[in-house]
Amino acid sequence: MPTIRVAIAGATGYAGEELIRLLLHHPHVQLSYLAASAKWERPVPAADVFPRVAGRLSLPIEALDPARLAQSDLVFLALPHGSAMNLAPKLLEAGRRVVDLSGDFRLKDPSLYTTWYEAPHAAPSWLSSADVAYGLSEFYGPQVAKARLVANPGCYATSILLGCLPALEAGLINEGTIIVDAKSGLTGAGRKADDALLFSEMSENLRAYKVNAHQHAPEILQEIQRLTGRRARMFFVPQVVPARRGMVSMIYASTSATTEQVAAVYRQRYSPERTPCVRVRASGFPQMKDVVGTNLCDIGLLVDPALRQLLIVSALDNLTKGAAGQAIQNMNLMYGWPETTGLTG
Amino acid sequence: MPTIRVAIAGATGYAGEELIRLLLHHPHVQLSYLAASAKWERPVPAADVFPRVAGRLSLPIEALDPARLAQSDLVFLALPHGSAMNLAPKLLEAGRRVVDLSGDFRLKDPSLYTTWYEAPHAAPSWLSSADVAYGLSEFYGPQVAKARLVANPGCYATSILLGCLPALEAGLINEGTIIVDAKSGLTGAGRKADDALLFSEMSENLRAYKVNAHQHAPEILQEIQRLTGRRARMFFVPQVVPARRGMVSMIYASTSATTEQVAAVYRQRYSPERTPCVRVRASGFPQMKDVVGTNLCDIGLLVDPALRQLLIVSALDNLTKGAAGQAIQNMNLMYGWPETTGLTG
Amino acid sequence: MPTIRVAIAGATGYAGEELIRLLLHHPHVQLSYLAASAKWERPVPAADVFPRVAGRLSLPIEALDPARLAQSDLVFLALPHGSAMNLAPKLLEAGRRVVDLSGDFRLKDPSLYTTWYEAPHAAPSWLSSADVAYGLSEFYGPQVAKARLVANPGCYATSILLGCLPALEAGLINEGTIIVDAKSGLTGAGRKADDALLFSEMSENLRAYKVNAHQHAPEILQEIQRLTGRRARMFFVPQVVPARRGMVSMIYASTSATTEQVAAVYRQRYSPERTPCVRVRASGFPQMKDVVGTNLCDIGLLVDPALRQLLIVSALDNLTKGAAGQAIQNMNLMYGWPETTGLTG
Amino acid sequence: MPTIRVAIAGATGYAGEELIRLLLHHPHVQLSYLAASAKWERPVPAADVFPRVAGRLSLPIEALDPARLAQSDLVFLALPHGSAMNLAPKLLEAGRRVVDLSGDFRLKDPSLYTTWYEAPHAAPSWLSSADVAYGLSEFYGPQVAKARLVANPGCYATSILLGCLPALEAGLINEGTIIVDAKSGLTGAGRKADDALLFSEMSENLRAYKVNAHQHAPEILQEIQRLTGRRARMFFVPQVVPARRGMVSMIYASTSATTEQVAAVYRQRYSPERTPCVRVRASGFPQMKDVVGTNLCDIGLLVDPALRQLLIVSALDNLTKGAAGQAIQNMNLMYGWPETTGLTG
Repeated sequence: MPTIRVAIAGATGYAGEELIRLLLHHPHVQLSYLAASAKWERPVPAADVFPRVAGRLSLPIEALDPARLAQSDLVFLALPHGSAMNLAPKLLEAGRRVVDLSGDFRLKDPSLYTTWYEAPHAAPSWLSSADVAYGLSEFYGPQVAKARLVANPGCYATSILLGCLPALEAGLINEGTIIVDAKSGLTGAGRKADDALLFSEMSENLRAYKVNAHQHAPEILQEIQRLTGRRARMFFVPQVVPARRGMVSMIYASTSATTEQVAAVYRQRYSPERTPCVRVRASGFPQMKDVVGTNLCDIGLLVDPALRQLLIVSALDNLTKGAAGQAIQNMNLMYGWPETTGLTG
Repeated sequence: MPTIRVAIAGATGYAGEELIRLLLHHPHVQLSYLAASAKWERPVPAADVFPRVAGRLSLPIEALDPARLAQSDLVFLALPHGSAMNLAPKLLEAGRRVVDLSGDFRLKDPSLYTTWYEAPHAAPSWLSSADVAYGLSEFYGPQVAKARLVANPGCYATSILLGCLPALEAGLINEGTIIVDAKSGLTGAGRKADDALLFSEMSENLRAYKVNAHQHAPEILQEIQRLTGRRARMFFVPQVVPARRGMVSMIYASTSATTEQVAAVYRQRYSPERTPCVRVRASGFPQMKDVVGTNLCDIGLLVDPALRQLLIVSALDNLTKGAAGQAIQNMNLMYGWPETTGLTG
Repeated sequence: MPTIRVAIAGATGYAGEELIRLLLHHPHVQLSYLAASAKWERPVPAADVFPRVAGRLSLPIEALDPARLAQSDLVFLALPHGSAMNLAPKLLEAGRRVVDLSGDFRLKDPSLYTTWYEAPHAAPSWLSSADVAYGLSEFYGPQVAKARLVANPGCYATSILLGCLPALEAGLINEGTIIVDAKSGLTGAGRKADDALLFSEMSENLRAYKVNAHQHAPEILQEIQRLTGRRARMFFVPQVVPARRGMVSMIYASTSATTEQVAAVYRQRYSPERTPCVRVRASGFPQMKDVVGTNLCDIGLLVDPALRQLLIVSALDNLTKGAAGQAIQNMNLMYGWPETTGLTG
Repeated sequence: MPTIRVAIAGATGYAGEELIRLLLHHPHVQLSYLAASAKWERPVPAADVFPRVAGRLSLPIEALDPARLAQSDLVFLALPHGSAMNLAPKLLEAGRRVVDLSGDFRLKDPSLYTTWYEAPHAAPSWLSSADVAYGLSEFYGPQVAKARLVANPGCYATSILLGCLPALEAGLINEGTIIVDAKSGLTGAGRKADDALLFSEMSENLRAYKVNAHQHAPEILQEIQRLTGRRARMFFVPQVVPARRGMVSMIYASTSATTEQVAAVYRQRYSPERTPCVRVRASGFPQMKDVVGTNLCDIGLLVDPALRQLLIVSALDNLTKGAAGQAIQNMNLMYGWPETTGLTG
């Protein structure tokens, strides 16, 4: 079976580690180059960094060398914000395909990038290029299939957009007052040495952070507008809970529909045939553990008829469907492979 | 210093254990009788049940005997719903004082009790007695001081009522569409052998449960109406998170006020002198760990001016301010002792 | 590709759930019947019990019916102790193959069974049958390949035997004073409603239990004697730690060898070709997370030359290599498939 | 009631935070100065750093200024290793008393300090001064009472020494082959931004580290020799488990005594009157949760007569009895106050 050569830049982060975990079992992929950052001192066997892969992966993890990245067919960029916008253009010019897991290519408006990421964009012309697709696989499948660079959505963006888009498309909820109370595991913050992420700080704790100030908010509002034509407003309250992986977003919006009407719309939009990675529950709500380790997004729905409010519960694994898994789903779409290839383990 | 004799019924549950922990250091209390349930087989040293108290408490834990309860000055009833309504009347007739931590005396309307607790009330005449007070200490202090029986509020009720009452009293929010997204530690469910509460089910998990069906909802709405005259509506989404103790409620409601206006109202209502067990944060939001193990309720406030929505974050320890601590605070009020006696450790 | 029909008895327990997780991806297996216990009331879609498998598994979970079990080619018995010894003989007589995950067929001496499991054995003649093999895959491969019933080892037994057998075989340690300080995740205790297993009891806790009284001890000593001819003595201190899955056993024994000598023996005994599910670390010690979710047992070794003591650290996932994974490994051996078929995901 | 002025250097670390928690309730202490490190930029209200103390502590946390430290009667030094040896001499010359929670004054032999802490000692003459006591309160009470500087023992040292000293004093165990399998919560590693301490690394994990290479080993062996005259050997296997606070050490040693003989010795050595902070269990073993948040060390004992091995389980809270609590216990001894003053909350 033909395979492609795949490189990972940022292989030592949580998303990089999850890419490795998943790609080891992808039938069409040969891992060719695992790069950490440019500062990485010398090649280290991957098994020394991640003992889990001992005996299964013989590649070293090496310093990031753009020229070596360009020797692969496809590159996953799993780097902190600000790196991909410098690396990706060169890879594209060299004819490579790129899936970028950072925020660098998600926003169409460069000034919005500057506002939220506090730096000018280094490659603004690419932001509106037809070669670049926003990789929300369930909504941009055709664009992703044709894209040379896929901007993989943020974890909150994936969870919230998959949660509310069908209702917005169908005009079932008021886009003016969306409240999102979202709970994330700690890997969402990355493998970074930060006091606030220590076990001793977060065990038996829960913390709201970046309330109405999270950098995933603008991409969520941008995509709602692009996909539904509506200018939504959102009260966005991200929280971390004492879990490593998993994200459960509660989305509240006013509606005049019934639970059954809403559910019918979701079941149609997310049929198993059309969107194999999204499951709509017949009743009840997904728990975090229902999806951890999978590339699935589970959705539960309930209308409170007295308040005329809809609750959408959207659950996924921030590292899989919210990052590495969706990145692979997008790669599958780019190469014309079945969407879930390598993602059902 | 004069002390009172205090009995605990339900000493082996989480609230009972917390009562023991706190009362061991209360200067005016002598623990006189620790009762489990009527089925408890034989007296067992408390230190055998709770090794933490070895060397500090020599009382046994014994079978529940109503006659022996009546030999104490005050009885804390920390039993499952349905027991207190049978025990309390006899204790009151014997001239004893009672703080009941169950739901048996919280609802004024017996038919509401039947609806939510699925059993007729055994002592309906007491529900509206002037001798019975709803023990939300910060709002019913004078009534508690005169009461012979205090119905200690549920943990969610304490968290949510303390969170939203000042805004409702001041007419700052629309009582018609209150959304409560509340996260609780697992001890809130009690020390009961239930698969869903196992470590192996809840580690790295988050689960919504009893959505719009939690038995604390009617007491919340009843008290909003009694205290503010408003008939509120609430979308109530209780959740359990992987923590033992602690509860963080996010309360959303529409408002036309600013953060500063709301905060001014809360700071006035909850001044340290008037309500030493409630703290209003000058900025930011409380984390769960800020209050665990204390009898404090911490409150953070933010208005999203574009959406005209107020977020109230209310954090407390479900076992302390949400149960045993508030029960002791109420006992202090009943005896005229300073409200925080024995609660500042 | 030819497949076999496989039934699981005890499908609702943790080992049963793990069998389902793994067998869904086994290329030669078709799940044919998922049985809970005999008391199970009515068929329930597996996705209602385990929402993770929604969309991936359409079988119901049903009441246990021995006659239906006998319609499959192979039956995994993942039931509490005492059930398999009644069920297995009938299945064997019907020509079926059985992998039993309970303790019922592990001990060769029926009186030992009575001592440790507090009941007479119902099928003692099978205990010494050549058709029954002790399923420690790495040591009884040929016997398993010929067996009709495989007694799958206990999780502690797997961890400890894999850890110490090579040293005992090579005469490198004194079998008279083996100390085992073993730490297990909570799923090892099964999905049973037991206060001591609650999240609220075990978060931030660690507890020793059944010290020198754990029912896996006799099978460990039996197998050491069968495999090495040595009558070992073991101080066995099992502990639970706040984790769902995973087991790390520290095994201490006196030795006159060096770390290098011991490691050479282990690397030879556990070469990747010969035992693909055991990995010997070149240096350092395995962490619990290195193996969770895998069918691997990782081993680290260190001799303290001053004390002449060897430390063997043996880490595995109690549900995978310690239960369901090894059970599948044994099934693979029974059918002549590569040992790791379906186990590398 | 007369009080002393107390300063804390290192107030932002976990031990410093625990000192604050405990000293707020100490009847003879007035907190006078809370210092972080010298690099701390500007005074910050303690409640901004630790929201738990809001409303209870009005002191700021400030940059470390040695001259200001010297204005207090007693200084707790809760700084990383290497700081106290420079600060303490000046404080002592100024007539102040010091309790040092670091390793700087624990080892009598300066060359041993250099070996283990990889730096020469800056004040070697103090190491053997009669004014300096090793603050294992239960064994050096008279020396602590007379000391001007107390070197507070390490958490592992406290746990292990309290665990094994009575048996060694009584000649009940062989000091030549002591095995210590010790499990610690993560706060033991300090509040430092280190990848390996992240929630995402340690939830559901267990890791051995610094095996036979932990810096608490030399103080343990030194004190065994000083207190019993025996040159012990110890295989020391420290481990971190997914908990914030708490330490459970399993100590194994060969013995010819019975459980009852050993227990009698421990009950005599650790009678409640003589050592109120150590509890010997009548049977069974302490769990981690039995002591978390207390200044108690709980001990369980069992001899395996067939192996002639003694197991000592020693449990304490690494931040309390293993650090801040014992430091306060030592302060109490230095001032002639009852040993448990302020420590029974």
